[in-house]
Amino acid sequence: MSQNGHKVIGTRPIRHDGVDKVTGRAIYGADIQLTGLLFGAIKRSPHPHAKIKNIDTTRAAAHPGVKAVVTAKDLPQIEDKIADLGESVGNLREMSNNVLAYDKALYKGHAVAGVAAVNLHVAQEALELIDIEYELLPHVTNVLEAMEDSAPILHEHLKTNSMGEETDKISNIASHFQHKMGDPESGFSDADIVVEREFTTQTVHQGYIEPHNATALWNEEGQLTVWTSTQGAFSVRDQLAEILEIPVSKIKIVPLEIGGGFGGKISVYVDPVAALLSKKTGRPVKMTMGRDEVFEATGPTPGSYLKVRMGATKDGRLTAATAYMAYEAGAYPGSPVGAGAGCIFTPYDIPNVQIDGYDVCVNKPKTNAYRAPGATNAAFATESVVDEICEKIGKDPLEFRIKNGAKEGARRADGPVHPRIGCIETTEAALSSNHYQSSLENSGNGKVRGRGVASGYWFNLNGGRSAISVSINPDGTINMLEGSTDIGGSRSSIAMQLAETIGLEATDIKPYVVDTDSIGYTDVTGGSRTTFGTGYAAHETGKALIQELKSRASKLWEVPIDSVQFSDGVFSCSNDSEKKGTFKEIVSQAGEFGGPVVAQVSTQPDGSGGGAFATHIVDVEVDTETGKVDVLRYTAVQDAGTAIHPSYVEGQMQGGVVQGIGWGLNEEYIYNDAGNMTNASFLDYRMPTSLDLPMIETIIVEVPNESHPYGVRGVGEVPIVPPPAALANAIYNATGIRFRDLPMSPPRVQQALVENNG
Amino acid sequence: MSQNGHKVIGTRPIRHDGVDKVTGRAIYGADIQLTGLLFGAIKRSPHPHAKIKNIDTTRAAAHPGVKAVVTAKDLPQIEDKIADLGESVGNLREMSNNVLAYDKALYKGHAVAGVAAVNLHVAQEALELIDIEYELLPHVTNVLEAMEDSAPILHEHLKTNSMGEETDKISNIASHFQHKMGDPESGFSDADIVVEREFTTQTVHQGYIEPHNATALWNEEGQLTVWTSTQGAFSVRDQLAEILEIPVSKIKIVPLEIGGGFGGKISVYVDPVAALLSKKTGRPVKMTMGRDEVFEATGPTPGSYLKVRMGATKDGRLTAATAYMAYEAGAYPGSPVGAGAGCIFTPYDIPNVQIDGYDVCVNKPKTNAYRAPGATNAAFATESVVDEICEKIGKDPLEFRIKNGAKEGARRADGPVHPRIGCIETTEAALSSNHYQSSLENSGNGKVRGRGVASGYWFNLNGGRSAISVSINPDGTINMLEGSTDIGGSRSSIAMQLAETIGLEATDIKPYVVDTDSIGYTDVTGGSRTTFGTGYAAHETGKALIQELKSRASKLWEVPIDSVQFSDGVFSCSNDSEKKGTFKEIVSQAGEFGGPVVAQVSTQPDGSGGGAFATHIVDVEVDTETGKVDVLRYTAVQDAGTAIHPSYVEGQMQGGVVQGIGWGLNEEYIYNDAGNMTNASFLDYRMPTSLDLPMIETIIVEVPNESHPYGVRGVGEVPIVPPPAALANAIYNATGIRFRDLPMSPPRVQQALVENNG
Repeated sequence: MSQNGHKVIGTRPIRHDGVDKVTGRAIYGADIQLTGLLFGAIKRSPHPHAKIKNIDTTRAAAHPGVKAVVTAKDLPQIEDKIADLGESVGNLREMSNNVLAYDKALYKGHAVAGVAAVNLHVAQEALELIDIEYELLPHVTNVLEAMEDSAPILHEHLKTNSMGEETDKISNIASHFQHKMGDPESGFSDADIVVEREFTTQTVHQGYIEPHNATALWNEEGQLTVWTSTQGAFSVRDQLAEILEIPVSKIKIVPLEIGGGFGGKISVYVDPVAALLSKKTGRPVKMTMGRDEVFEATGPTPGSYLKVRMGATKDGRLTAATAYMAYEAGAYPGSPVGAGAGCIFTPYDIPNVQIDGYDVCVNKPKTNAYRAPGATNAAFATESVVDEICEKIGKDPLEFRIKNGAKEGARRADGPVHPRIGCIETTEAALSSNHYQSSLENSGNGKVRGRGVASGYWFNLNGGRSAISVSINPDGTINMLEGSTDIGGSRSSIAMQLAETIGLEATDIKPYVVDTDSIGYTDVTGGSRTTFGTGYAAHETGKALIQELKSRASKLWEVPIDSVQFSDGVFSCSNDSEKKGTFKEIVSQAGEFGGPVVAQVSTQPDGSGGGAFATHIVDVEVDTETGKVDVLRYTAVQDAGTAIHPSYVEGQMQGGVVQGIGWGLNEEYIYNDAGNMTNASFLDYRMPTSLDLPMIETIIVEVPNESHPYGVRGVGEVPIVPPPAALANAIYNATGIRFRDLPMSPPRVQQALVENNG
Repeated sequence: MSQNGHKVIGTRPIRHDGVDKVTGRAIYGADIQLTGLLFGAIKRSPHPHAKIKNIDTTRAAAHPGVKAVVTAKDLPQIEDKIADLGESVGNLREMSNNVLAYDKALYKGHAVAGVAAVNLHVAQEALELIDIEYELLPHVTNVLEAMEDSAPILHEHLKTNSMGEETDKISNIASHFQHKMGDPESGFSDADIVVEREFTTQTVHQGYIEPHNATALWNEEGQLTVWTSTQGAFSVRDQLAEILEIPVSKIKIVPLEIGGGFGGKISVYVDPVAALLSKKTGRPVKMTMGRDEVFEATGPTPGSYLKVRMGATKDGRLTAATAYMAYEAGAYPGSPVGAGAGCIFTPYDIPNVQIDGYDVCVNKPKTNAYRAPGATNAAFATESVVDEICEKIGKDPLEFRIKNGAKEGARRADGPVHPRIGCIETTEAALSSNHYQSSLENSGNGKVRGRGVASGYWFNLNGGRSAISVSINPDGTINMLEGSTDIGGSRSSIAMQLAETIGLEATDIKPYVVDTDSIGYTDVTGGSRTTFGTGYAAHETGKALIQELKSRASKLWEVPIDSVQFSDGVFSCSNDSEKKGTFKEIVSQAGEFGGPVVAQVSTQPDGSGGGAFATHIVDVEVDTETGKVDVLRYTAVQDAGTAIHPSYVEGQMQGGVVQGIGWGLNEEYIYNDAGNMTNASFLDYRMPTSLDLPMIETIIVEVPNESHPYGVRGVGEVPIVPPPAALANAIYNATGIRFRDLPMSPPRVQQALVENNG
C-alpha cells in the first residue's frame, strides 16, 4: 500500500501496452495495410516565398501507375473563419492553405500538390513531373527582421505595427497583447537593483521518431475513415470535417500507436491530402512523411526574441518585472506567445508586471505546440535574469525563489489567481536535495565546471472532455475503452485510477484506445490533461460501477439497497455482517440481476485546478578548448500533485529534461541565405542521445490538486521549461559568461570563450 | 409513417453495411492480414471410425517452412464436465476431442493434427508427412442401425437402450426423454381416424458460402486474440476459455463479416487449433477450411427417423398424437431432437400427446444447429400425417389447421403455455391468400401439378444478454456499438429501434459490431433472438438517452427536470411552450452541461414472449419421366410480431424457404459403404440455385409479441420448417404418391413413379 492509503495509485505495475510494444506487435500508423492500397507523396515548394502562378499536373497524371493528382483546387474554398477547434488550430482558411498552398508558398517545403500511385517510388517519380510556375518573392525568416518596416510581407491582412498599434500599413505582426498588473514603473523605482536583458531562441523541432502518417479510405457512400498516429483522434476528425466540409458523422478516425508527439501530432498535414486522393481514386491511400518533410513542413516550436526587465530590493524581494516577447508564428499566425506570456513570471509572486506579446509571421513552417509551448523560451529569459539578480545581491538562487515564490491566492499577470499549488514545496525540495547540497569542484583536466538552477511553470489543462466505456467480464476483470491516445503511459495511469476506485488490481483492467465512433468525444492528449481528465472520467466510471453493483448486491442478498456499503474494495450489508464480497465476487454472482454489467461515462471537469511547477539543478563541465558542454549531473524536481504511476511521472520528467537539454545546447533550424533549412536530418539536427547524457535524477513533490479526486496534476510539459535557463546559469557559473542566445552549442560557446579571453 | 404510428419501424431504409458489402470493402474472416502471418492446415482422419494408436509428427515438423505441429496432446486434458455455454455445446471433453481427436477418430474428416507453415501449400504438404497409425473399427452412419444391439459402438459410457431404459450394456443412444400430456390412448380411442406413418430424413448442411476460418495471435503475455467469422464472438470466447483453460479476460474475439451461418457458425473448429499453433510459434496463424472440410468436419443438421401417429374425429378435431423421434447426434451426443420434440405438434392444440425422443451417436460429424434445428424433420412427419388425415376426412387442410390451431393459453406437450401467438392468424392469412384461392391446372405437357400446404413452429429465444453502447456526435447522430454479429441485416433492424425511440432517422445511427473487449457480454446471434433481444437493449438505450437529454434540457432551459417532456421526437417544457427541440437540437446545445452524451446499457429480457408460426403454400410440377420436381409458385406466410424492416423479414422468409426446398428436394449427405461422404462439394451436394426457383412470395402477419416494447418476434428460423412437408403434400397432390423419405430427389421420385405404375 502506498503512503496515502492507496492500493494501486503510487505503485509501478508493468504498463498494459508494454509487451506488445517491446515485442514489436504494436501497430503504428505506417503499419497499416489495406486491400488495393495506393501510396501518396507530396510535391513541396523549393522556395521560402513565392506566388504560385500555375500548376500543370498533366505529365504527372499521365505517368504510368499514377492514379490521381490533387492540388489546393480540390479542397473546398473555405471562408475566412476561426475554427472552433481549440487554441492550436486558428484560422480555418489558413489551416487549409497550410495543407495545400493555394496561391502562395510561404515556406520551403510548403505542400503544393499530392499524388497517389501504385507504389511510393512511382508517386515520387510523378512529383518531378508536376510543373509549377512560381514568381519568387523576397523572404524573411527571423522575428526581428520580420517586424521591420522594410520586411517582405507574407499576408495582406495583418496590420499591427511594432508598437502593437493597428495601422493602415500591412505588416507581419499578426497580433499584439498586453498583460498589466500593478504599477511597473513604481515597482522598478522601489527596486535596489534592476536588470534588463535581451534573449533569442531558435526554431526547434519536437523530434519524434515516427514521421507523420495517414491512411485514408473515402468509400462510395462518402464515409471517410482515416488511420493515423495522432495525439487526438477527435481533433483530427474535427479538422478534417472543417477542411473537407463534411459532417463529423461521416468521418471515423482510427488512432494507431504513436511514436512520439509532444504537441506536434495534433494538427493535420497529410491526412486531408490522403482523403482527397482516396476520394478521387476510390481506393485507400497511405501517406507517410520523410524526415526532411517532418522538419520542413510540420510544426516546430518558434524562434523568439525576448527582452526582460526585473527589479528587486537588496534583501531579495522582487518588486517589478516587464517583458517584451516576440515569437515567430511561422507562415501563418498562431505562435505560443500567449502561453509564454502566461508562464513567463508565474513562478514568482511579483506585485507589478507588464507583458507585451507579439505574434509574428515569417517564412518558416507554421509553428505548433511543443511541450509547454512558449514557456521554455520565456523561462530562459526570466530565469537568467533572476540568476543575475541573485548573484548581484548575493542571495542563494533557490532561497530567493522560495522567498518570492508563487502561492495559493497570488494573482498571475494574465489574470487568474492560483489555487493550491506546489511552487514553494518544489523549490524547497530542490534546496534540500542531495544534489544541491553537494559540492562541485573542477576536475583539473582543463575543463571548467559550474552549477545552475532554474524554475518553470506550465498551466496544465485541468479540464476537457473525456469518456470511458467499460464492460465487465464474468471473472470481474474490466475492459476499458478510452478516447485518449496514449503518448506516455496513460493507458496505465487511467486504468489504475479505475482499479483504485473499485478495489481491483491494475492488471485487472484492460485499457484500449479506440476509434472516434466507439467512444464519447474525448479531447486531445495534450496540455498535460490526460491522466487528470480521462482519469477523472475513470474515477466517475468506477463510482457508477459501485452504484450498479450495490444495486445487484441488494438483489442478490435480498436486502435494501441503502444497506449495501462499499469500502476498501468490499461490498457489505450494514444489517448482516455475513453478507459481503469484493467487486469480483459480486460480479461473478450478479449477472442474473440485470444482464452484463456495463457503463459509459463522460466528464468535463471545470478546469479550476492549479498548474505545474518545476525546479531543476544542473552541473555542467565546459571544454574551454572546443566549447562543448557536458552535463555531469541533472536533478529535476516537480510537483506531480499525486503521482499515479511514479515511473511514468519520472519518465515524463526525464524526457522533458532531455528535450530541454537538446534545445539548450544544440538544437536549432539553421537557414541559409536562400531561406532553406540546411540541417533537415537527424544527422545534422543534433538531438541528444543517451551517450550525451547522465541519468536524469528526479524528485517528485506531491501537493494534491484539489480539483481532482486523487489529486492528479499534469506532469508532461513543465519539465521542458527550466533546462535551457538552468544550463545557461550553470555555464555562467563555470565560465563567467552569460549566454543569452540559444542554442549554447560548441561553436557559440567556443567563440564567446575566445572573445571573453581576448 | 407506417401503420402503427411508427416513423422508422416498418420502413425499408438501405442497410447500413450495404455499400461496403456491394463494393467489396467489407472484411470477412479470410481477409485478415497480419505481419508474420503463418498458415495452418488440419490433418484429418480418412476413416469413419478408428483408434489412433500413434501419431508421429517428426517428418512433418522437419519439413522446410513448417513452424509447428500440434495434436490433441497439446490441448488441456479436460475433465468430463458439461460446459456452461448453452445448449449447442454440451460436454466439454467431447467438444475438445471434436476439435482434435484424442484417442479415437469418430468420423471421416475428424481433425487429428494441425500444422502451421510459412504458406498454405507448405502446410498442406506437411499434412502428408504426419504418420498416423490407426486401428480400424466398424462404423455405423444410420440412426436406426446405430440403435441396433449389434451396432458398432462409438462411446463407452452411453448405456440407454432402444426402449429408453438405462441398462448395463453400452449403446449409441446418448439419451431418451418423454413428454406426455393427457391420455394418448384414450385420445386415440375417441378418434374416428388414426394415421401412423414412418419418416426418414438425411443429413443436410447449412451450405453457407464462406468456409470456417480463424486467425489467432497468442502473444508473449498470454493474451489471445482471434479474428473469425462467427455468429457469436462471446460464444467463441467462452468456448476457447473452456477448451484452452485460460480466463475469458485473456481472450479477445474480433468478429469479422460472416458469409452465412444459419446456426453452423457457433461452435468452434479451427479456432483452438490456430490458437495452439500461434502459442507454439509466437506468430499469428490463419486457418481456413476447404469446402470438403466444411461438409465433412463441421456441424450439419441430423438425419432422423420419426414415427408419428395422429387421431382425429370425422368433423376434424385432433384427439391425440404420439411421436417416436430418433435423431442422429453425429459423433458426440447432442442432436436437436429435444427442440424437434418441442415443435413437432406445436401448431396444434391437441389434448393428448406423447413424444419420445432419442439422441443417437453415429460415425458422422457432430451435428449442430441449422435454422430451427430439429423442427423441419419433425414438421415433415406431422404435416404429412395431418395432410393425409384431412384428405381422408375430406377437410380443407388450412381450415383443419385453423380449427385445431394453437392459441394463447394452450399448453405445449413439452410444458409451456402459449402467450399471445399468431398461429391462427397466420393460417387464416394463408387461407385467404391469392395463391391459395387461385386454381392450379396441369399444363398438359406430360407433367403433373399439385399443391400442398404445411405449417411450422419455432420457439424463438425471447431473451438472452445484449449490450448497446452509444456515443452521440455533436451533430446529433449516434455511433452505436453492439455485440451481436450481423448475419441478416440486424445492424439495421437494431439501429432502427434506437432511431424510433429517440426520434431520429435510421441513417442517423452508425451501427458497429465490435470485439468482445469493446462491449458488454452479448449472447449468440441465433435462436431468432437478435432483433428481439439486442433491439430490446437498443430501446432501453434510447430511453436512457431521453432521460439524459431531459436533464441537459432542464439545465439548458433552466427549468425543473420534471417539466421536460419527450414525445414524438421532440423535447419540450410543459411550463413554457417556447422551449422545445428535437434530439439533434438539444444535443447540439447540450455539450456544455456534462460533457459528451454517452451511454452503455445491457439487458436480459425474461424470455416470456411467444414463438413463431408459419404456414406455406407450394405448387409443384412433377416430370413423370425424370422424377424432377419444379417449384412453380411458393407463398410463405409468417407471424413476425412487428416487422422492423419488412424487406429483411421477407428476406429471412425467402431464405428459409429456399433452404427448406433444397432439403426437401435434393440435399443429402451420400455415404458409401466405407463410411465416406461421396458428395462433399457444391457440384455434387445439390443446393438450389436461383435458376431452380420462382420468386418466393411472402405475407407478413403482425401479431405483436407482448414481451417486446415494439412487438418484435424472431423471424429467421421458422420459415425453414414447413417446406419439405409442403412439398411432399404437393407432390402427393400431383402424383398420388406420399413420399416419407427425404430428399424427394429425381431418382427417388422417378423410382416411386415407376413402382406405382408397375
